[in-house]
Amino acid sequence: MSFDTLQDQIRAMKNPTVAGLDPKPEYVPPHILQACYEQYGATLEGAAEAVYRFNCGLMDALCGIVPAVKPQSAYYERLGWRGMEVLERTIRYAKEKGFFVIADVKRGDIGSTAQAYSEAWLGKTKVGDTELSAFGADCVTINGYMGSDAIKPFIDTCKAEDKCLFVLVKTSNPSSSELQDMVAGDRLVYKVMGDLTQRLGRDTAGKYGYTLTGAVVGATYPSDLRELRRRLEQTFFLVPGYGAQGGTADDVRFAFNKYGHGAIVNSSRGIMCAWQKTGRDGADYQQAAQDAAIAMRDDIKQFVTVV
Amino acid sequence: MSFDTLQDQIRAMKNPTVAGLDPKPEYVPPHILQACYEQYGATLEGAAEAVYRFNCGLMDALCGIVPAVKPQSAYYERLGWRGMEVLERTIRYAKEKGFFVIADVKRGDIGSTAQAYSEAWLGKTKVGDTELSAFGADCVTINGYMGSDAIKPFIDTCKAEDKCLFVLVKTSNPSSSELQDMVAGDRLVYKVMGDLTQRLGRDTAGKYGYTLTGAVVGATYPSDLRELRRRLEQTFFLVPGYGAQGGTADDVRFAFNKYGHGAIVNSSRGIMCAWQKTGRDGADYQQAAQDAAIAMRDDIKQFVTVV
Repeated sequence: MSFDTLQDQIRAMKNPTVAGLDPKPEYVPPHILQACYEQYGATLEGAAEAVYRFNCGLMDALCGIVPAVKPQSAYYERLGWRGMEVLERTIRYAKEKGFFVIADVKRGDIGSTAQAYSEAWLGKTKVGDTELSAFGADCVTINGYMGSDAIKPFIDTCKAEDKCLFVLVKTSNPSSSELQDMVAGDRLVYKVMGDLTQRLGRDTAGKYGYTLTGAVVGATYPSDLRELRRRLEQTFFLVPGYGAQGGTADDVRFAFNKYGHGAIVNSSRGIMCAWQKTGRDGADYQQAAQDAAIAMRDDIKQFVTVV
Repeated sequence: MSFDTLQDQIRAMKNPTVAGLDPKPEYVPPHILQACYEQYGATLEGAAEAVYRFNCGLMDALCGIVPAVKPQSAYYERLGWRGMEVLERTIRYAKEKGFFVIADVKRGDIGSTAQAYSEAWLGKTKVGDTELSAFGADCVTINGYMGSDAIKPFIDTCKAEDKCLFVLVKTSNPSSSELQDMVAGDRLVYKVMGDLTQRLGRDTAGKYGYTLTGAVVGATYPSDLRELRRRLEQTFFLVPGYGAQGGTADDVRFAFNKYGHGAIVNSSRGIMCAWQKTGRDGADYQQAAQDAAIAMRDDIKQFVTVV
């Protein structure tokens, strides 16, 4: 599904946010962990199953309110292949529930290796005479340090499968400045990456005017965000850094164009860990996540009129 | 295992090379694929099992000749969780056979997410009161576009587990110049990344003088390779680009210091696909791989005296 589909879903729900599914162990309510350890032992299988149940519970609570989910691959990989199996199931469940799925994998490799990654996450894998889906997400995050060789194979897969991607441009973390803010020629490095991203996607703009090559731009540097919004008019933004990392609704409003289009803001901790702030033991994690998601939507809506 | 261990193994075998395990489907001999499809069907499971058998056959043939193997994660991910299960088994088998294992994953993320990746690939995952190994490699490749936040958590894991890593510095692909060769301040971007890599590893040098933070430097830009060898005296190099990508023994010799230390050169296609050049149907893939590995060793040895 392309950014057109995502923008349609954002408009339908009047909510330009995505819920991160980053199941750190301490985010999972104790009663879920305990039940899975009793059934499967304190094993990678048990931990993975707990993650799956938590994810499904969260998606049941967020369905119809939040248009997209973004599983972060690292928290599944740390559980080995059991975690990857649960990541496959999580993506399948998300799609059944109608969520747009962004696989946050930040892969970056070249040529046929980049093609293999794009098959894994967005496309299909040829086995004998058949083509099979591996992870089957709608969208991925990728890293362009290796240049356009690392981006083009993903673009080919996106064109063939009507999918889309986000390239890391200006990230929300404190040390992002070390490389990304260096002056390279007449531009900063992150602007070089932003320009490359938009250029590689040219001629792929959909009905809202966005190419299939989006950009990750953090909420924690609002002036950079504002400047990139002006510079990259055809580029859809994924905006991390809202909430726990310090970005506010006042900061993220710069990610949207004058029609309130062109960006989606992520929250992971704020939604997944909402149950830790209710003073109860996690039995209410679904209600707490839903309340937090609605509060985030309304917080951002005050500045952004999505039409 | 650290770069000390790797350098010891290189010296013992008089062979500073690593065999890539990048099982593209067309690299796997037809008789292996056919047997697995008959047993498991033309499924992701069947394709994954074929990859495992091919990997084991290759490692049996290379054991004692080549000190290290480097599985490329993309070719396992494209087979979904079945591929990741086979990647776990491949790494386990490699370690049983005494290979130093470099997981070529090029992960790049920050903070607790980087920590989760380092647990997945190098460290241990805490489940309840126990600590379990997920993929359990000796070394990984990582991407530092996000800055030191993306590198430090891996360093912590490496220190705790006596392991090591390679940061992408100057890659071997044609478009690596687009970002990496830009002038950033008084240095090129790839030198900024190289300097950062060596600086973050300071105070971790082992008996051969190398920090646990190595660098990926391609064979296809030999003058850059020579300059980086001089600039980063304490940095161990992983050198892709030899053979199929055009790098020669004459090019890669610049990766080594005057003692013939400090680098390992990768070959994937040249070894895995050697059977395609013997005029037979792949039944001789082990002999062909061994012959190719020995030829590569001797090719590089003519310029490099490993002592």
